[in-house]
Amino acid sequence: MLSEFHPNDPALRSFIEAGSTSHFPIQNLPYGVFSTPRKSTPRVGVAIGDQILDLSVIEKAGLFEFECFDSTLAKSSLNAFMALGPSTWSRTRRRISKLLQHDNPELRDNEQLRVEAFDRIESATLHLPIVVAGYTDFYSSKEHATNVGVMFRGASNALQANWLHIPIGYNGRGSTVVVSGTPIHRPKGQLKSASEDAPRFGPTTRLDFELELAAIVGQGSEMGSMLTEQRAEEMIFGFALLNDWSARDIQQWEYVPLGPFQGKAFGTSLSPWIVTREALEPFRVPGPGQAPAPLPYLQQTGQNNYDIQLVVDLVPAELQTARRIAQTNFSYMYWSPVQQLMHHASSGCSMQIGDVLGSGTISGPERSQCGSMLELSWNGAEPLGLGNGMTRSFLEDGDRVCLSGWCQGDGYRIGFGEVEGTILPPRDV
Amino acid sequence: MLSEFHPNDPALRSFIEAGSTSHFPIQNLPYGVFSTPRKSTPRVGVAIGDQILDLSVIEKAGLFEFECFDSTLAKSSLNAFMALGPSTWSRTRRRISKLLQHDNPELRDNEQLRVEAFDRIESATLHLPIVVAGYTDFYSSKEHATNVGVMFRGASNALQANWLHIPIGYNGRGSTVVVSGTPIHRPKGQLKSASEDAPRFGPTTRLDFELELAAIVGQGSEMGSMLTEQRAEEMIFGFALLNDWSARDIQQWEYVPLGPFQGKAFGTSLSPWIVTREALEPFRVPGPGQAPAPLPYLQQTGQNNYDIQLVVDLVPAELQTARRIAQTNFSYMYWSPVQQLMHHASSGCSMQIGDVLGSGTISGPERSQCGSMLELSWNGAEPLGLGNGMTRSFLEDGDRVCLSGWCQGDGYRIGFGEVEGTILPPRDV
Repeated sequence: MLSEFHPNDPALRSFIEAGSTSHFPIQNLPYGVFSTPRKSTPRVGVAIGDQILDLSVIEKAGLFEFECFDSTLAKSSLNAFMALGPSTWSRTRRRISKLLQHDNPELRDNEQLRVEAFDRIESATLHLPIVVAGYTDFYSSKEHATNVGVMFRGASNALQANWLHIPIGYNGRGSTVVVSGTPIHRPKGQLKSASEDAPRFGPTTRLDFELELAAIVGQGSEMGSMLTEQRAEEMIFGFALLNDWSARDIQQWEYVPLGPFQGKAFGTSLSPWIVTREALEPFRVPGPGQAPAPLPYLQQTGQNNYDIQLVVDLVPAELQTARRIAQTNFSYMYWSPVQQLMHHASSGCSMQIGDVLGSGTISGPERSQCGSMLELSWNGAEPLGLGNGMTRSFLEDGDRVCLSGWCQGDGYRIGFGEVEGTILPPRDV
Repeated sequence: MLSEFHPNDPALRSFIEAGSTSHFPIQNLPYGVFSTPRKSTPRVGVAIGDQILDLSVIEKAGLFEFECFDSTLAKSSLNAFMALGPSTWSRTRRRISKLLQHDNPELRDNEQLRVEAFDRIESATLHLPIVVAGYTDFYSSKEHATNVGVMFRGASNALQANWLHIPIGYNGRGSTVVVSGTPIHRPKGQLKSASEDAPRFGPTTRLDFELELAAIVGQGSEMGSMLTEQRAEEMIFGFALLNDWSARDIQQWEYVPLGPFQGKAFGTSLSPWIVTREALEPFRVPGPGQAPAPLPYLQQTGQNNYDIQLVVDLVPAELQTARRIAQTNFSYMYWSPVQQLMHHASSGCSMQIGDVLGSGTISGPERSQCGSMLELSWNGAEPLGLGNGMTRSFLEDGDRVCLSGWCQGDGYRIGFGEVEGTILPPRDV
């Protein structure tokens, strides 16, 4: 019977209950790093229902009997655990699932261990779960790239010539990847409108969010080597939600010819829970057809997109009530995370444990499926209505943006939780 | 008399001799990380003449009596030492200088310590001296930016509108910053000439070097904060030579609209010795006049350029003898390292210990003062003569490129050593 056990089985139940709309049923088990009032040292845990299972406690108790951990789960990031590789990731998730089964007394009936091992998510501080090695941001939604192209270059010339051949991406700034909840000060920068002769320096007036999914790279690759599809797949530890905050006016003036820099360097928010690639397996779907066919080094045989429902909620400063401003799906993405990773290493660029690959803004075919204010307000030309006559072209001080997402199973969800951030006024210095 | 001692004094002499053309006289004392056949653990040292002074030995012997090091100099990178801040950097350099004075018996006459503390540079392995936090590449030579602009957009439209206002830069790939001597495999990538309908994947045929100076950031800054000129100055630990290898054909097809990616991700070579900012003090010069005046956040009162002579030697595969193909000076640079750093943090982007800021290709007004093959061969239109009818448009397999640089004092040099690398054929996988 053991051989038939699979942690993705929809029939599994835990003694920690999770309702049908919970993001964290036993089929998910996303990894995070947390601390609590009773123990301020950050350590690794998995979310289950409204609880966190403290894996450092489970490790210390010797319950990962087949693994050679060395306080790996007592560390303040997932990097050491990720370094152990995909078969360890898989065995560990399987073991955690077993420990949480409703009919397994090991942990369930060990009163003392249970008290020590469980904390309420609500009472915990959630930390950035990884040490970011590099942050790379792609541009893989055809709808998003087309929308931006139409706005800035006109409909006849919307997609650049290279876009259908290359998963276009650029190196972002890793130092400002922060965990959900970190406030974002309105950045300053050089601004120059078409009517001005010279740039000024001041706070951005076109502050935006970008709805993205981040692939977390859990294994490195050697400088000079390329990646097969299978190896690229295995290297992805999991996924999280990402908000790539952008100052459109700073970006527009600076980005020619070397790409975005300060317009996207002031903050990038990551959700605290990393959903494993394995937990997403049941939700694989084919991506959109790719024509022309990708070059051989980018070809994939597997279905490397996922059916992930994504929503954007805006809590306007003056209202303090959430408005849903967009609803879309990850499956619209043209280039898959595996293709992004294969391209990233194609020149011989070494990949590192803790690399974060942003998918690029996720937009669908409808206006309401777009993942940025730039698109939702059509560059400010058609301000977004929020009800009661309230509108937004870009973000205002005090606005709060909350991105969320989940895969919908039959009676359960594999959720990502959320990534949120509030805009604060510019700092004086 | 103590108050008059300064480690930059040209009159100082060490008991370790260094001739007038040595890069490493007692006025320099650049930091590096090295290992030796007798001790394979990488540790911190300074170069003096043709020797390395092992600072981990000096630390352990208690000779840094006023400093609270904690095996800081026994580590395999300079990051922990850099974290201690500019006044410690200064005191440490002063102390090392004193220890090496010709008339100081402390180290000179301690036979046993001398044997332990000195190794020949020639017999040591030099490692990448820092853990690279982020690698940012600027584009701060007006001559280089103009040359590239003329080649690709014509003389009337050479400099982009933003160039005279912003120290233009982009985030590079930190994972492939490697120490001098690391061979570089010819990278593969997507290539598409103007006459081709679709891209192919194959080895670059337009492989180039870029002569740059790297500013090594030794102190961090807080997310959300900007930098004053004084703080930016203090944060720079030192400088090293950098070769930003580039595949021009890959770069040209990929770079619109998000900038260079795989065309510059396959390798970036750094020289092993970091020359301290303090050692360069006597060689400060004003930069070129800046018109229009920079915005206030970029204004500097100090002279933040340096008179550094730079040379590029090419050892062609078929010859194995060096040809000097370019000779230029860092003082031509339009935007200074301090301005680059102030701009980098201007949006609130946090800086990190170990950030590497590439200056951008250093070119002067003459063709022979250009820091890339792209310019030296005018995009291949005017192949560079190497004598005996031999020419180069771009680099060939087996070619070796060696960049070197020094400040010329009165009878001595403050040198950077060299950064070199040899091109190997593309790898099969």
